[in-house]
Amino acid sequence: RRGEMAKSTQLTQLINNDVFRAFATYAAIVLLKMMLMSLITAYFRITRKAFVNPEDTESFGKGEAAKKYLRTDPDVERARRGHLNDLENIVPFFGIGLLYALSGPELSSALLHFRIFTGARILHTFAYLIPLPQPGRGLSWAVGYAVTFSMAYNVLRAAWLL
Amino acid sequence: RRGEMAKSTQLTQLINNDVFRAFATYAAIVLLKMMLMSLITAYFRITRKAFVNPEDTESFGKGEAAKKYLRTDPDVERARRGHLNDLENIVPFFGIGLLYALSGPELSSALLHFRIFTGARILHTFAYLIPLPQPGRGLSWAVGYAVTFSMAYNVLRAAWLL
Amino acid sequence: RRGEMAKSTQLTQLINNDVFRAFATYAAIVLLKMMLMSLITAYFRITRKAFVNPEDTESFGKGEAAKKYLRTDPDVERARRGHLNDLENIVPFFGIGLLYALSGPELSSALLHFRIFTGARILHTFAYLIPLPQPGRGLSWAVGYAVTFSMAYNVLRAAWLL
Repeated sequence: RRGEMAKSTQLTQLINNDVFRAFATYAAIVLLKMMLMSLITAYFRITRKAFVNPEDTESFGKGEAAKKYLRTDPDVERARRGHLNDLENIVPFFGIGLLYALSGPELSSALLHFRIFTGARILHTFAYLIPLPQPGRGLSWAVGYAVTFSMAYNVLRAAWLL
Repeated sequence: RRGEMAKSTQLTQLINNDVFRAFATYAAIVLLKMMLMSLITAYFRITRKAFVNPEDTESFGKGEAAKKYLRTDPDVERARRGHLNDLENIVPFFGIGLLYALSGPELSSALLHFRIFTGARILHTFAYLIPLPQPGRGLSWAVGYAVTFSMAYNVLRAAWLL
Repeated sequence: RRGEMAKSTQLTQLINNDVFRAFATYAAIVLLKMMLMSLITAYFRITRKAFVNPEDTESFGKGEAAKKYLRTDPDVERARRGHLNDLENIVPFFGIGLLYALSGPELSSALLHFRIFTGARILHTFAYLIPLPQPGRGLSWAVGYAVTFSMAYNVLRAAWLL
């Protein structure tokens, strides 16, 4: 019984730590934003009638009637590229950000990193989907990249153990 | 010496916490399932003789003899799409699920989330590879998506710190 | 005030744990290596003038003058495949490796896993980009895969809770 209380205290401490709570909040937001890309892709696939799996077009009829919907569409491909770019950038943010949050940074510094990254990735999504003229997308990508790099530098400085 | 014991106690507490152990178990299972997609893709590439890198076909001979195996194959592409779909869905599950496990949920509630997600993703893989007629794949995807969303809601309620 | 000290002590313990510090170090290195693939892809897109988004070619002029740069290039595609392979393999390493680091392994055993994986993925990148003749790329992929599998076995043995 005492062991159980110790355990729950220990876990409560983690979620009660301000830096960890901040990370949990922003990490959940960017991961949800990334998940949203699935819905956007599905929306374009359905409205543009552009599918990739034969079983997805069966409701449009048999044979040639359905086959013509097995095609690529620029809006679908654009949403898919935005989704892949999220994976390429939000995965390192989550991994490095978690290690950074556990390395004992100042709350103000951590919040600055998390907020700038989150803002940059939301801007990146709008820049990709509208699309905005360059360098809108490029800059929003670079800002998120630089924030993750800065957190990685702090992690390596705190944890370096080769 | 005492410091070392404190550290190992602290770590032991994390892995001894039931919710965290449940997360570790199911997260390892779905990550292994995702890794399995690499083997399935490799299996189809080899049996269908459909490669993408010229250096992969050199054992089939020189020049044109090898070049004809640089092609796409429907089974290979299907396995690759299943793999990418896993990345798009298992990454958010891992990130949000880890934060959720550390936010102090009831064990029964956590197990329900982890088990349904794991089952849904295993079904999704079968639905994609066999393939099953729709909405089999769509429903199994949606169930996993909803579970991750539910965990994100719990994380944000527990950690909200903007 | 006392609560705050307890919290920071708890977090300090995690980053002071040798196995966790080792994981943080090597995880940051492989995640940075994965991020580097974005720069390599961008470098090839710019030097080979091979883009996918119309807004990215606008600086080359209007209409047909710009349109001819919307094309695929073998070096760009190779870098992109290397990046996707990193996502498929470094994501499971991060997830399973984190759970493994928290499951209380011996430091020497943990370092062995982390170092072999990191070396294998760096070799894999060189093997993919140069490219080296097979089975160079295949073997470096398989070594990283086996290391992650070994860590997953240890996690499941320590945490098993279905």
